[in-house]
Amino acid sequence: MKTAAIIAEFNPFHNGHAEIIKKARELTGCDYCLIIMSGDYVQRGTPAIVDRHTRCRAALEGGADLVISQPTRYATSSAENYALMSVELLNALGCVDYLVFGSECGDLEELRSCAQFFSDENTAFQEKLREYTRSGISFPKARAMAAPMYESLLSSPNNVLAVEYLKALQSTGSPIEPVTIRRIGAGYNDDTSIEKFSSASAIRNLIQNVNVTPVFTFGSKNLMSAFSGETVRMNASELHSVTSDSILSYDYVRSDTAEQMYFRCIYDLAESIPEAPLHTQIRSASMDGVVCDDDFSLILAEKVWSADSPEFFMQFADVSPDLARAVFNNRFACSSFSAFAETLKNKSITRTHINRALLHIALSIVQSGETPLCAQVLGCRSESMELLGKITEKSDVPVITRPARDLKTLKGAARDLLSEEIRVSNLYNMVRALKKKATVTNTLSRKFIRI
Amino acid sequence: MKTAAIIAEFNPFHNGHAEIIKKARELTGCDYCLIIMSGDYVQRGTPAIVDRHTRCRAALEGGADLVISQPTRYATSSAENYALMSVELLNALGCVDYLVFGSECGDLEELRSCAQFFSDENTAFQEKLREYTRSGISFPKARAMAAPMYESLLSSPNNVLAVEYLKALQSTGSPIEPVTIRRIGAGYNDDTSIEKFSSASAIRNLIQNVNVTPVFTFGSKNLMSAFSGETVRMNASELHSVTSDSILSYDYVRSDTAEQMYFRCIYDLAESIPEAPLHTQIRSASMDGVVCDDDFSLILAEKVWSADSPEFFMQFADVSPDLARAVFNNRFACSSFSAFAETLKNKSITRTHINRALLHIALSIVQSGETPLCAQVLGCRSESMELLGKITEKSDVPVITRPARDLKTLKGAARDLLSEEIRVSNLYNMVRALKKKATVTNTLSRKFIRI
Repeated sequence: MKTAAIIAEFNPFHNGHAEIIKKARELTGCDYCLIIMSGDYVQRGTPAIVDRHTRCRAALEGGADLVISQPTRYATSSAENYALMSVELLNALGCVDYLVFGSECGDLEELRSCAQFFSDENTAFQEKLREYTRSGISFPKARAMAAPMYESLLSSPNNVLAVEYLKALQSTGSPIEPVTIRRIGAGYNDDTSIEKFSSASAIRNLIQNVNVTPVFTFGSKNLMSAFSGETVRMNASELHSVTSDSILSYDYVRSDTAEQMYFRCIYDLAESIPEAPLHTQIRSASMDGVVCDDDFSLILAEKVWSADSPEFFMQFADVSPDLARAVFNNRFACSSFSAFAETLKNKSITRTHINRALLHIALSIVQSGETPLCAQVLGCRSESMELLGKITEKSDVPVITRPARDLKTLKGAARDLLSEEIRVSNLYNMVRALKKKATVTNTLSRKFIRI
Repeated sequence: MKTAAIIAEFNPFHNGHAEIIKKARELTGCDYCLIIMSGDYVQRGTPAIVDRHTRCRAALEGGADLVISQPTRYATSSAENYALMSVELLNALGCVDYLVFGSECGDLEELRSCAQFFSDENTAFQEKLREYTRSGISFPKARAMAAPMYESLLSSPNNVLAVEYLKALQSTGSPIEPVTIRRIGAGYNDDTSIEKFSSASAIRNLIQNVNVTPVFTFGSKNLMSAFSGETVRMNASELHSVTSDSILSYDYVRSDTAEQMYFRCIYDLAESIPEAPLHTQIRSASMDGVVCDDDFSLILAEKVWSADSPEFFMQFADVSPDLARAVFNNRFACSSFSAFAETLKNKSITRTHINRALLHIALSIVQSGETPLCAQVLGCRSESMELLGKITEKSDVPVITRPARDLKTLKGAARDLLSEEIRVSNLYNMVRALKKKATVTNTLSRKFIRI
């Protein structure tokens, strides 16, 4: 039994992800494809657009066999720590053979040589790096200046992560074999392009637009006649039962009523997301809403306004003394999450770093010397239960399938970690439910998904 | 120069309040009528329906000369402490001659004899009270059982406060002379009756219904023709420029469209609130929204879920060890403020006490040995600036007219108190602004109102 693993956010799950799962199977000939997926918050220091259970279901529908939730404190840490903790978790599972990851360069040897360089970090490099960061240059920029031969390679975000995975595999003496796939399609921050492998941020922008419970007038329940003007009301669940076949055949109208905008978004999304994951994620966005960083403005502001000294902020993960001072001194300027992050921006710190720090303040994620792990299984395909059995048998860390029950038996740091996960996940659910004036679901009571 | 003071919440300001100000002037012959008004949160342990600046303006329009904000930690404390801290503040101002308060009984001597009894608190009474509260009976009930001769008197909420004011005047050796006015009109908790002196809770229910930005179809801007069906859009500020004369003459339609409901509410409110305060408060409710305890659900839940022991909750004002344990043990049942308060209800604690405790948890109002005071002036009539001058001259406690400037010069406990006021008031404004998707106003930058 061979297992390949992929570390991902699936924010949201799209064609690119389905493709990498397919390629991972082809390249490794594995029996199972396992995913370590970020929970309700992602590495850019923002909440995920839809919740982890929805994204897990989409992943299972899109070809994954089993999805494990990456704890928030690791999922929202620096690229280096994110990669390290993900690899540590894979190592601990005791049954993973391959780690498959995308990269812009697609050349494992080139990535390996870069990883080797940073693992060794020769003295000259280290000194230069320290000098640059001390002079107020941000870490990514300082690293590029200190190691100019890798500047081009590391200017692509998937290469950066790939190098971190390789460093982590090496530093942990992992037996897991790395496999890289050349990443195709749109860039990381490309907001506008729509194509088969559209960027995740472009897809998120589209999903924002379907965050309404649509009540439309239809001639029939076929989208082809959506604009015929007859007055049959169709509720959101009926709408989503329309197959994506009919979405794809719907006559693509370039006009601007809210209804037409809505369908145009779904039509565009259908080009970027496979059918079943599209329905799952659109249903969730439409019925339960989408979440963005500014939905945490109130929670952040309450924390920021309450502080009586800069030191208060230094307890939180990724908050440096400089940043703590800046947060404190500007605290009454904190009216929204994104505006406050913008206020704090300067050349020595990336916006992503600021976002992560503010998210940790909002979520009360404190720095910790310990790095406990647990493997919370969010979902598994019925035909892949053998993999779950193997993990349960081999894992060095607690395997969580029923949080409410498992929380009672866990002890120490692993228990604290699971408590934190339940807490920040409930907070996500509550923020989302309040927006929709809906009832909050307690994540504690959720069992893992089987499809 | 004689000054009469009234301690009140004005939640919202209505005919009963205008009447008590008028009677206070008649009975005392005073030159000025000063108000100590609860800030953005009130004694029932809930946020006020509209913000303190709006209620202050309404009070000035309704006959008050000067309004001072009662700090939240005192405004939301037990009746005994609420009365004591209000009287301490009046004493500190150094220029108040009379304290005028309503009571159901209207007989100062009877109230005084009751106050005297509880001030002396003879040994037999104290022992009984302790015995009853220890056995799990709530404080108000235990007191009634221990002093049955005052049970009837103390079953009326205004008498309870009146007795507390008299106790406070006596215990602080105050030179201020008490004056009571028999309270007329509806009961404290009467939700339905609408009459000239309607209950504040009935009025709040009506104001809830005008918390929409109305876009209606009108024949003209005269409310008489509001339902003629022609399509002239009238925005909220135009609507509120319509005089209450036309509101009063509007044909009272008993039907159920949203527009008719809206106007019926305003019509009903116009019977209970004087014209200028009605416009001020309705404009605020309509444009900026109203606030209720469940708007603090997210902030409360975040705090409650974060706790790692019952002891965490004991730092907050009005949280007893028993209540702290109950909050901790039921923490994952905290989905909304009101539902959680309901969950925690039992015979030994009043719902108001629970509300106050939860509000203090949500607002991070911790217990404190010190009882600092400051007099934040929210507003003053232009013709009453002499009173403000006298207060500034005579006051033993800092007089705050420009919070941003005064915060810089204040020191120690008074500074902490003002900081807390700014923080909880900003939180109120933010909760309100988020509901309306509006921009947050920083209370720090608000000067006092002059009309």
